[in-house]
Amino acid sequence: MLDNEKVLLTDVTGRDGFQMEDWVETEDKISIINEIIAAGVKRIEATSFVSPKAVPQLKDAKEVIKHLNRENVSIMTLVPNVKGAEFALESDVDEVNVVVSVSETHNRKNVNKTVDESIEGIVEINRLMKTGGKKVNVGLATTFGCPFEGLYDVDRVTEVIKKLTAQGLDSFMLADTTGMANPLQITSFVKGVKADFPDADFSLHLHNTRGMGLANVIAGYDAGIRNFDASLGGIGGCPFAPGATGNVCLEDVAHMLYQMNIPMDPDLNQLITASKRLERLLGYKLPGQVMKAGLSTDLHQA
Amino acid sequence: MLDNEKVLLTDVTGRDGFQMEDWVETEDKISIINEIIAAGVKRIEATSFVSPKAVPQLKDAKEVIKHLNRENVSIMTLVPNVKGAEFALESDVDEVNVVVSVSETHNRKNVNKTVDESIEGIVEINRLMKTGGKKVNVGLATTFGCPFEGLYDVDRVTEVIKKLTAQGLDSFMLADTTGMANPLQITSFVKGVKADFPDADFSLHLHNTRGMGLANVIAGYDAGIRNFDASLGGIGGCPFAPGATGNVCLEDVAHMLYQMNIPMDPDLNQLITASKRLERLLGYKLPGQVMKAGLSTDLHQA
Repeated sequence: MLDNEKVLLTDVTGRDGFQMEDWVETEDKISIINEIIAAGVKRIEATSFVSPKAVPQLKDAKEVIKHLNRENVSIMTLVPNVKGAEFALESDVDEVNVVVSVSETHNRKNVNKTVDESIEGIVEINRLMKTGGKKVNVGLATTFGCPFEGLYDVDRVTEVIKKLTAQGLDSFMLADTTGMANPLQITSFVKGVKADFPDADFSLHLHNTRGMGLANVIAGYDAGIRNFDASLGGIGGCPFAPGATGNVCLEDVAHMLYQMNIPMDPDLNQLITASKRLERLLGYKLPGQVMKAGLSTDLHQA
Repeated sequence: MLDNEKVLLTDVTGRDGFQMEDWVETEDKISIINEIIAAGVKRIEATSFVSPKAVPQLKDAKEVIKHLNRENVSIMTLVPNVKGAEFALESDVDEVNVVVSVSETHNRKNVNKTVDESIEGIVEINRLMKTGGKKVNVGLATTFGCPFEGLYDVDRVTEVIKKLTAQGLDSFMLADTTGMANPLQITSFVKGVKADFPDADFSLHLHNTRGMGLANVIAGYDAGIRNFDASLGGIGGCPFAPGATGNVCLEDVAHMLYQMNIPMDPDLNQLITASKRLERLLGYKLPGQVMKAGLSTDLHQA
């Protein structure tokens, strides 16, 4: 079923996770992200250089970046515009993530722009980041469907990617923003875009909103994806599904890969320790399962 | 990836679910199971004819069976011994389920017998049930690993099945009793036993203890399984993992199949309605995700 190519796990706790929480103290953010780095995660979306008015939860972005232990890890921030990109350059992050929705309706609602207007902004950010020698990854929100428009064909996704590759962008996060994807669709979409854009890099940003998170990871892996976003404890949530779980859970994904002998970087037990500390910090029961159940391979006394 | 052969969903809410709860009133059990039947589920493990001392939660087994709407559905009960099988015959259930663990340690701890002693008991039950023209299914507990002994090779499973097929048993539930299985293992074990016993029927009894439940369903489906146990809302739990989720969630499995265009019997919306009622009845937040998030294909107002 599987070859044994190494998987890169990208932690998005600091951005997609903390953005959905009430205020988390800056020192706690720093300490959790540094614990994730210490566990061996090699790529981190740490925060977002977004307007503090729009997302007050991440208004301490500069401070957070400044105190991360940046050896052996690629630090990314989300940037919504050129101003954010300038902050990212000042903070000397390794990569930046930008976002455009595949769905016009979602893009309009999210940033009050057309998809083409968002792409223009991305091109401008890319130009700026290139002057600083920084990589730009494009998050394609609502890749697998839009809560307003419903499901659509992969052609809708291909069309947006085509406009972006024409402008020199070559790294894409296929984002299941509201957890609508199913494994069959993941297989077909991933194969579709990889065939159409063989020189581009693709990663998967999956949510567990409807319980299919890890099934979608496997479908993505089988279709050739080797880079997955995930958050510690599975924090993140979805504004359209109160009470539903968030991003796929970092340590649950890592545990599944470990049990399947698929190589990856982080130490599973250190991730679980970090997740339990995050749970105490946030003060509610996180969606992660392995932090409650332990490893499949943990033995009990008879 | 998939052919479109219909999936049979077997609901185990009444047995594996209610067994893990504090006392649920008999009339509530009946009403929930009847609602699951009304939703179109065609096969139900409704309760267990086990000693009321061992499992007081199911001491009302006879009463429950008596009040089920039994048209267009196969009603099963778990029976641990000949006495239970006699009760099952009296209640005129359609099928009975018996259990033996693949792991000697687990079997000893569960029923204080060796695996061979349990098999002798199963053979005796099978003889009795045949006189009544009833089908016997063997649940192979700890098929994918034992919390005491750890993981093992599929040969351990094959060995137990061989002893059972030699005695005329031909229907097996491969049970991931404590949620240890991963998709790679499901693929290899299912293919292994199906190749070795081409005339036997196999179903999967999966738990979501470590978040891999639906990933394992897909792996099982791809390996040829068309019969899956599941419980409403994902109730069930695991004595070795307090706080972890239980069986794979019936409506979450149904939702995934629906989104993947895999045919099955129950009406998804009726299942979700039933699950929400069960949640109100039990008074705590059930693990099911779709009951919180709605269908992937539900549209929101922009």
